[in-house]
Amino acid sequence: MDNEKCKMKNEKKEISLKEICEYLGIECPKTDKKITGINTLQDAGESEISFLENKKYEKFLSHTKAAAVLIRKEDVSKLPEGVIPLITEEPYLKLALLTKLFAFSPWEEGGYQINKGAKVDSSVRIGKGARIGKNVTVMPNTVIGPYVEIDEGSVIYPNVTIYRDTKIGKNVIIHGGSVIGSDGFGYAHTKDGKHVKIYHLGRVVIEDEVEIGANTTVDRAVFGETRIKKGSKIDNLVQIGHNCEIGENTILVSQVGLSGSSKLGQNVIMGGQSATAGHLEIAPFTTIAARGGVTKSIKTPGVYGGFPLMPHTSWLKLQAILSKILKKNNG
Amino acid sequence: MDNEKCKMKNEKKEISLKEICEYLGIECPKTDKKITGINTLQDAGESEISFLENKKYEKFLSHTKAAAVLIRKEDVSKLPEGVIPLITEEPYLKLALLTKLFAFSPWEEGGYQINKGAKVDSSVRIGKGARIGKNVTVMPNTVIGPYVEIDEGSVIYPNVTIYRDTKIGKNVIIHGGSVIGSDGFGYAHTKDGKHVKIYHLGRVVIEDEVEIGANTTVDRAVFGETRIKKGSKIDNLVQIGHNCEIGENTILVSQVGLSGSSKLGQNVIMGGQSATAGHLEIAPFTTIAARGGVTKSIKTPGVYGGFPLMPHTSWLKLQAILSKILKKNNG
Amino acid sequence: MDNEKCKMKNEKKEISLKEICEYLGIECPKTDKKITGINTLQDAGESEISFLENKKYEKFLSHTKAAAVLIRKEDVSKLPEGVIPLITEEPYLKLALLTKLFAFSPWEEGGYQINKGAKVDSSVRIGKGARIGKNVTVMPNTVIGPYVEIDEGSVIYPNVTIYRDTKIGKNVIIHGGSVIGSDGFGYAHTKDGKHVKIYHLGRVVIEDEVEIGANTTVDRAVFGETRIKKGSKIDNLVQIGHNCEIGENTILVSQVGLSGSSKLGQNVIMGGQSATAGHLEIAPFTTIAARGGVTKSIKTPGVYGGFPLMPHTSWLKLQAILSKILKKNNG
Repeated sequence: MDNEKCKMKNEKKEISLKEICEYLGIECPKTDKKITGINTLQDAGESEISFLENKKYEKFLSHTKAAAVLIRKEDVSKLPEGVIPLITEEPYLKLALLTKLFAFSPWEEGGYQINKGAKVDSSVRIGKGARIGKNVTVMPNTVIGPYVEIDEGSVIYPNVTIYRDTKIGKNVIIHGGSVIGSDGFGYAHTKDGKHVKIYHLGRVVIEDEVEIGANTTVDRAVFGETRIKKGSKIDNLVQIGHNCEIGENTILVSQVGLSGSSKLGQNVIMGGQSATAGHLEIAPFTTIAARGGVTKSIKTPGVYGGFPLMPHTSWLKLQAILSKILKKNNG
Repeated sequence: MDNEKCKMKNEKKEISLKEICEYLGIECPKTDKKITGINTLQDAGESEISFLENKKYEKFLSHTKAAAVLIRKEDVSKLPEGVIPLITEEPYLKLALLTKLFAFSPWEEGGYQINKGAKVDSSVRIGKGARIGKNVTVMPNTVIGPYVEIDEGSVIYPNVTIYRDTKIGKNVIIHGGSVIGSDGFGYAHTKDGKHVKIYHLGRVVIEDEVEIGANTTVDRAVFGETRIKKGSKIDNLVQIGHNCEIGENTILVSQVGLSGSSKLGQNVIMGGQSATAGHLEIAPFTTIAARGGVTKSIKTPGVYGGFPLMPHTSWLKLQAILSKILKKNNG
Repeated sequence: MDNEKCKMKNEKKEISLKEICEYLGIECPKTDKKITGINTLQDAGESEISFLENKKYEKFLSHTKAAAVLIRKEDVSKLPEGVIPLITEEPYLKLALLTKLFAFSPWEEGGYQINKGAKVDSSVRIGKGARIGKNVTVMPNTVIGPYVEIDEGSVIYPNVTIYRDTKIGKNVIIHGGSVIGSDGFGYAHTKDGKHVKIYHLGRVVIEDEVEIGANTTVDRAVFGETRIKKGSKIDNLVQIGHNCEIGENTILVSQVGLSGSSKLGQNVIMGGQSATAGHLEIAPFTTIAARGGVTKSIKTPGVYGGFPLMPHTSWLKLQAILSKILKKNNG
């Protein structure tokens, strides 16, 4: 696939700050600034809006390049010069509402590109601007969303759903029924206990030589990317949350569940039904035994198991101790 | 969608009691009664059949409105006057066999209704009598079963399967690959260890503003409804068994499993991979930590975890104690 | 379906040993032998290649009927006369590479057979050589792979994916979104931590009267069969690994995970979210409680639970003891 020649781009939205403020019911600063997206304080570009809800992220305020920031009144003074404050008592809730404004339609019809040697079944539905690379196989009743790219030699089995903007590398295999790029599980909560959907504006990137089993789900990022790196192998019925980063040659056995923003190093192995809590890192070459529940970052590679997690040898020892206790009680 | 104008109704079956008895090989009372369905002793109407297998439900016998009841000889005297006994030594097994007689075809072709502003992809298959509301979006290769109703503004992603009779409210979102309304996991068992399928005659109702993730499964009710109430949010790869009732604004994180007839109050939160045993209730505003296994009803709201379930603080304490025991043993 | 009249056969590949050796970069013995497949030492026929990686299987060397064996130099002398040694320091890795050569295309167009009374929706895609039996129902957007056989009276719901060569018996029910026959999760590993896919050359066989729930996955065998025996009932979101054998009338509740080569006897019951490690057997009439983790073979039928697994009564006792310990510590 010649990327140079393929100019069908997923255009960005451009919305005036004025319109945004009106939509959110926030006082409007005098500006004709145009906004093209939403991002975190760290990653926001000069035409993007960001937000500060959690004090934990306050440290990123001073260096943010964001055009404007949804922020509480008391924090406004911490903003760098030139960054426009959008004052609200509920920055995260306003952010959630705003995501809807920047979300693209999940399905659009229009021209797409199928390259030489690709075998795409007649029943496959392909969205606008998608690019199917050379010698790619797409089997029946699979759905390829708008602006999806699938690179050379990849094989997509039947009944797969690939959401818009997903990028799939070379020689990737995706088995039947898997769903790639669905919205992550993220909501802001109102005071009366309702949940306001955060539309997920990021995407999924699957690098070369990755294999994904049947009926597995990979959620797109809120902003930025969920990324599965080169050579990783993922079994059936695995859940990969939004903004996860899976290192190269990682192995995820069936029914593993990764919470959002889990970051696995290369050659991590996670056994069947093991899981992670969110926002943690696992060191390269770490093995999590089946059913292991990772609740905090692992900095030292090794074999771990149990829930809460411990070195696997400790877990085995603990089970032996419990067995002894049981026997003493005539169990 | 104008419900008043839409008169395509899913007609009920009407089968004579005589025919039913012949089909089941049960002695036939003299009557020309017509039967229109099957139900529990509590809920059966005057043209429905019910059954008594388990002594636990005997208390409902005296007030049942059922036309006839599958019942053991020794229990016949407890039936109220006018209710016809259908005498058998295996009421539950006969019930299972009978469900097949009342089951509708899961797929039927015929007229359906698509309302103004709805965007339904050309590859979507729609069964007889279905109604797609105003401004509903249905994406490619999704299948909408007979007599399904989808109300205004809902969005159904690709490759979703919605079984017949399912009712979906306003502004519902269902992600790719999910299956709504499949038969619950229910069988009667013969003396020689075979399993006789109970055809599920109930349906699934999903109320307004619910979001359901990718590759999640929601089973229809045996009789009556499986119901997901307003504003609930359900993640990927979640299993919701037959006859569950999910309260308003409840949150079910990925890979949760709810056994049949679990009843969750409003604003319950269940963490990833947590689960319930069947036929229990969880009080409103209860949180179950990830992996929590709920084996009996929770009457006091709070945060619970572990398997078997306990207050989450107790679980944390228990883990600390176990860790100490392990250390004492040089683990 | 008249099997006698149906001569559309899935032809075997025939590749010369010379070509195979060149492909693998192995020294080529002088022979014009043709090879038709790959198999284990025990099961290999006279035109098949086998391999010896693990000393555990050395005992099968002396009786193997294989035409040739991928084997380390030091083990060559143990081969029976007439069996050709294919000498390599990495037999398993070479085997993995070789599977690709023998893998058939997962999707082929061509003639297929639909028998009398079968109702196959117009949107169903059927591969070459498939046979749909009498009175079979196949609902919309399901995909039936090449050379799949579905016998009389079976019902396949929408959006199901059935991979090539799968054999489905009489009166089988498969619910929406399930994937039958996907490649198992098997890789050989290179010294630098990459994973080489083992193409799965076996198939799935589902016997009569089996019911499979929604979004369940059943992997095909590496060689030989994954088999689900007569009358077994499998719930939603269950994972069945490659080369499993599920005994008659077995019950697998939702979210069960069976690792590869698990062998369950008849009338086994596995509760929700329970699981097996691979290569083990469970005695007939055994019950595994919900969440039970089976890590070694069970020879004595009974009710087991916990992880690691123990008699369920012991597990209950252990929980009671832990509860007491907790109370003593003011938990």
